[in-house]
This record gives sequence, structure tokens and C-alpha cells, in this order.
Amino acid sequence: MMVLVTYDVSTESEGGKRRLRKVAKECVNYGQRVQNSVFECLLDPAQFAKLKHSLCGIIDEEKDSLRFYYLGKNWKNRVEHFGAKEGYDPEGILIT
Amino acid sequence: MMVLVTYDVSTESEGGKRRLRKVAKECVNYGQRVQNSVFECLLDPAQFAKLKHSLCGIIDEEKDSLRFYYLGKNWKNRVEHFGAKEGYDPEGILIT
Repeated sequence: MMVLVTYDVSTESEGGKRRLRKVAKECVNYGQRVQNSVFECLLDPAQFAKLKHSLCGIIDEEKDSLRFYYLGKNWKNRVEHFGAKEGYDPEGILIT
Repeated sequence: MMVLVTYDVSTESEGGKRRLRKVAKECVNYGQRVQNSVFECLLDPAQFAKLKHSLCGIIDEEKDSLRFYYLGKNWKNRVEHFGAKEGYDPEGILIT
């Protein structure tokens, strides 16, 4: 199933910056970065359970926000993109 | 219909910062901010056409990225949230 992962990690502290890097790194292992804090991940239920468990363990529940959107089977019909290329390098440079 | 709006606006220049503010301001008019660059907007087709037209007119198509996800009628079953409160003030302070 296609799962959209979006997050806001508070980067006011060094700890926050570390969490942000960890969350991004974990998402990269599971899916495609489409925006800075948005990943599209094609996962089976076991993979999704692992990813969820892992991300929930990284974030600070009082400061950070993590959301999952289940796009289902017809996910391609549910997405529309405008502007710069979809491919996104974790280092912040757009892939052309 | 419920439409998820996500965006990345390049803020390297003053123009970019201005675009970011404009995009956020426009989204606030149409929906609920759930993360810094993620809005959930409950729209009829006419409203959605207006929002799309407006946002596409604001972004720089070469630098910024804008994505719409159509979550359909059962959108509540498609969303899962973890961590800090969902409500999000445009000024960046979490609403409690």
C-alpha cells in the first residue's frame, strides 16, 4: 500500500536537528522523497509497522508532528504535482 | 472532497520567502494547517479549482514544488497522527 509520510520536527535545539536527520534517514530507507518533509512509501503491512514503530521512537511526541496518509491502491490517481521536479535528494538538491 | 496540499518553496531569496508567505496565506483561507507546509482542505470542485489556480500562480515552477493529494470521502480513515497537536498556527506556534 502507498503511505504518505509527512513530518514537522522542531529544530530549535541540537537534539531536534538530530531527530530531523534521523527521521529523514529512516524514511529514505522506505520510500521516495517528494518534498523536504514528505515521503511516498510503497509498503507491505510488515514494513509499514516497522517504519511506524521506528519513527515513533525517534520523534519527540511533545514537540514533533508525524502524520501518515493511506493513499490506497489507486494512489496514482490521487496525486497531482506542480512545479519543480519530484525527485528530491536528501541533501536538499533537486534531482534533475 | 478532502484535498491535502503539501509544498516546498525555495526560500533562498527574498522572493522565495515572499512566495512562501503567500502560499501559506492562501492555504489558510481554504483549510486547516496540520504541519508547517501541509494543509488539509475540505473543498468543493469550484473551490479546489480556485485554490489550484491561485497557488500555481504564486509558486516559481522551476524552484518550488506543490502537490495535491485527493483523500476522497473516507479521508478520516486515511489519516493517522502522532506527536504534537494537529492544530497549527500560521505564525509557527502550536495551538493547544
